[in-house]
Amino acid sequence: MTRTEARSDSRRSPNWQARRQAIIDTSAGVFAHRGYHATGINELCAANDLGKGALYHYIGSKEELLASIHDRVMDEVMLGADRVAEADGSPAQQLAMLGDELLDVIHRYPDHVWVFLHEFTALTGERAEQFRERRREYERRVEAALEAGVHDGEFRDLDPWLTARAWLGMHNYTYLWLKTGGRLSARDVAKPFAEIFMRGIEGPTRPR
Amino acid sequence: MTRTEARSDSRRSPNWQARRQAIIDTSAGVFAHRGYHATGINELCAANDLGKGALYHYIGSKEELLASIHDRVMDEVMLGADRVAEADGSPAQQLAMLGDELLDVIHRYPDHVWVFLHEFTALTGERAEQFRERRREYERRVEAALEAGVHDGEFRDLDPWLTARAWLGMHNYTYLWLKTGGRLSARDVAKPFAEIFMRGIEGPTRPR
Repeated sequence: MTRTEARSDSRRSPNWQARRQAIIDTSAGVFAHRGYHATGINELCAANDLGKGALYHYIGSKEELLASIHDRVMDEVMLGADRVAEADGSPAQQLAMLGDELLDVIHRYPDHVWVFLHEFTALTGERAEQFRERRREYERRVEAALEAGVHDGEFRDLDPWLTARAWLGMHNYTYLWLKTGGRLSARDVAKPFAEIFMRGIEGPTRPR
Repeated sequence: MTRTEARSDSRRSPNWQARRQAIIDTSAGVFAHRGYHATGINELCAANDLGKGALYHYIGSKEELLASIHDRVMDEVMLGADRVAEADGSPAQQLAMLGDELLDVIHRYPDHVWVFLHEFTALTGERAEQFRERRREYERRVEAALEAGVHDGEFRDLDPWLTARAWLGMHNYTYLWLKTGGRLSARDVAKPFAEIFMRGIEGPTRPR
């Protein structure tokens, strides 16, 4: 059973699951605009049109809700990373696909990603630990693509950890301005970003 | 009179100014670890070893304190950008120097930068407006270096706005792991980052 299934409680009805998911999405918007700590349970009740008892029935606790928002992002991000792994391209192709997938998530879930990147320190104990592990798992996919490219000579000799941080920053930070319905699509950004990055790390013998 | 001089009230004594600055720095640490909204005035009093009246005497209000933390970062960032402008290098040299300066600020002020990047939405009214203007002013320096490089042919034909976002994300996002006293110095990061970025955007005729 995955972490998210455990959280969303698979013994519940599809209706219950769908209602819970809608509450997570609505609340992500509230947290993104008001901040996690500044948002009270009463505001969450009002935004979701639910009484306190009903709200807790779906979300467990405010921190559990925050963890569910983080899971929502990580589920999508890891699904994308798994698609990339299955596609089995060269390290440069993998890295470009990882960028496509990541920017697509940021573009589709601007509120969730905002909460994800701003409020992860509000998670405590086991929830914080599980979040760090999932995030680390994704980062390792990026590092692995870089290591493979250095090994193959497709990339020049670089520090995979540090280069992964450059790549992650360049892509994650788009959450500040890449929005659903905005001027730029995820693809409009992913393509020129990949071009900068691939030229930036390609091996000396690689043709342009 | 600059905005920060106005805030720190230049008619006050040097002792008063120094005490106020120390309160800003200590409070940045508190906000970075607890969050701005979650931190009450009592906690700020305890951290600074001051009563409420004395604290307000130095900081004006909690939001004014937050604005002062933002100013502290922006003052340093703009000082660095001014040094780069005076140094008068090629666009690629300017961009590399901007990266050196920015990472140096992030490395020296981890708590302030954390608060800066996480809590800027808590600023309201004129304070929010002034913060946006200063931030935009810095972004324009980065865009200007890119525009100049495209114009000279030192950089390939690229979108300066979007490329500036890639550069800003790559550098700003280091606040998550680049820390005073950590394994890596600002320079350890700035150099490989500049290498990735410059190779990524250099013009086709430019020698390696």
